[in-house]
Amino acid sequence: MTGHDSIPDVVTDPSGERLMRADSIGHGVPVLAFDVGGTDIKSALFDGEGVARGLRRTPTPVADADPEGALIDRLAKLAAQLQDQHPDVAPEAVGLVVPGIVDSENGIGVFSSNLGWRNAPMRELMRQRFGLPVAFDHDVRAASWAERVLGGARDYADAVVLIIGTGIAGALLVGGQPYTAGGYAGEIGHSPIGEWPCPCGARGCLEARASAGAISRRYVEATGTAVDGAREVIARAAGGDETAARIWDEALDALTMSIAQLTAVMAPQAVVIGGGLSRAGGALFDQLRARLADRLSFHRIPVLVPAELSGNAGILGSALRAREAAS
Amino acid sequence: MTGHDSIPDVVTDPSGERLMRADSIGHGVPVLAFDVGGTDIKSALFDGEGVARGLRRTPTPVADADPEGALIDRLAKLAAQLQDQHPDVAPEAVGLVVPGIVDSENGIGVFSSNLGWRNAPMRELMRQRFGLPVAFDHDVRAASWAERVLGGARDYADAVVLIIGTGIAGALLVGGQPYTAGGYAGEIGHSPIGEWPCPCGARGCLEARASAGAISRRYVEATGTAVDGAREVIARAAGGDETAARIWDEALDALTMSIAQLTAVMAPQAVVIGGGLSRAGGALFDQLRARLADRLSFHRIPVLVPAELSGNAGILGSALRAREAAS
Repeated sequence: MTGHDSIPDVVTDPSGERLMRADSIGHGVPVLAFDVGGTDIKSALFDGEGVARGLRRTPTPVADADPEGALIDRLAKLAAQLQDQHPDVAPEAVGLVVPGIVDSENGIGVFSSNLGWRNAPMRELMRQRFGLPVAFDHDVRAASWAERVLGGARDYADAVVLIIGTGIAGALLVGGQPYTAGGYAGEIGHSPIGEWPCPCGARGCLEARASAGAISRRYVEATGTAVDGAREVIARAAGGDETAARIWDEALDALTMSIAQLTAVMAPQAVVIGGGLSRAGGALFDQLRARLADRLSFHRIPVLVPAELSGNAGILGSALRAREAAS
Repeated sequence: MTGHDSIPDVVTDPSGERLMRADSIGHGVPVLAFDVGGTDIKSALFDGEGVARGLRRTPTPVADADPEGALIDRLAKLAAQLQDQHPDVAPEAVGLVVPGIVDSENGIGVFSSNLGWRNAPMRELMRQRFGLPVAFDHDVRAASWAERVLGGARDYADAVVLIIGTGIAGALLVGGQPYTAGGYAGEIGHSPIGEWPCPCGARGCLEARASAGAISRRYVEATGTAVDGAREVIARAAGGDETAARIWDEALDALTMSIAQLTAVMAPQAVVIGGGLSRAGGALFDQLRARLADRLSFHRIPVLVPAELSGNAGILGSALRAREAAS
């Protein structure tokens, strides 16, 4: 049993210290970086060579009363642990990235259903606790920034990064920089393309049809058969299961529709696709390329490329942002 | 009958010299400005006070063999006429704006189905003919720039301008500047939101359902009754005509869907709506506001405002761009 002061269920990331094709964020000041999600927190120190030290995944604390206070307490404990284990790394800034609506310019967590806050002045609260400059940003925008600096978007100044997992999150790069619109831009998962209900309260959201979560949920609802995620639905579709084939086809059509709209309106050079579903590989990318070409005409169809930093894009982006805050 | 050297059917714009709430583009160097459409050309000299002199509308020449040459010949004749009539205005630069795909950075008319060219080096051809610095831009992007500087978008750095007439054209303002993506951005009229065919070759384009042209065409197809444009269909809908009501309802739903997507993805502060359909006033704006609120949830819904420069936004934008080219 874990005591009140310890952090329960510390799990070292099974990927260990390896950061998926990006062994380092490059030379610079040492920083402390956090990537906080609804269920777990990634944390690490990044040394002067840009190498992650002590990268770990631990649970996000549950707190109804004071969600920002409980989170900052937990981050301070993680920082102390990391510092104990890596006393040679003296961070000069802290990066924190979170889901929801984030006003990174003003350092405000506008809204997060996962973390339970509204208009939380996170950057200032963190600065007070850590006594260091703090970068506070949206997790997927930070991830897209890492893909821009180190990963799949490095060759494309105008790009859309789409992370397809339990939900669908997006971020826009315009002229090589994240485009935020006060934190409201990039909600591609909650852009409407049909009329079905979405738990967010809107109708026809892409996420409710094309996320890995939606694909497996829709299959279970249609058949009563449990599956091991969207990958199993895709495998069943390839094996001749008609229900699986229909659900996968509808997910591909929905993604095609959304990317076609992005193409017409923003004309990005590339769409960088990450998250669990992106590991479906050719089944996803080849299908999307063919369907996009089929439904558009004079438009400039973007290159579709896989994200390269995978699950670590968020914490890499957090570390990159922390370095910018330090300078 | 008109001779070969004269410009046929010169028609002074019925709006005369009045430029719709923008009597002047402000103080600056005198310029010559053209706004070329598929059927007619607007031309004017703008004097040092920014007042349009000799504003007129004349037909676009039809030429299969050398469309860019025929157009430039015509523009040179218009310039000579304007100069004869206003010898006190000595233009220091020329603005030319056209429809289609325009690479304004490199001065290339990439593609225009209306004007019949591909990869035409228009800026250089114009410079050779006129011996002056030339600004070459897309008509709707130039119009959006005029709305930004002088009109409905003046308070909004992040805005979408939507011109709903025979077709639907759009332009994006990002951080106060037009966002072009090599000329491919802003094709909101040809962004897919359904499955119906579009003459452009794509499927489900907004324009094929919600343009003023589509609304009247669909009504005529459904009823065999000729109408005086979309305004008559809207009036019939208000008067209890069920077919008209259905077609207008579907057009509003289509516009709502597209604006909802823009809201989720780009989160503009405002959508500035111009063109013939925008003069439907409350019937359009109130309906769109109510339907947007109904179909979205946590999103930041943009302000919907009417364009202010109406049919003259294009030539005002052309003149503004010409002044930038002169400096």
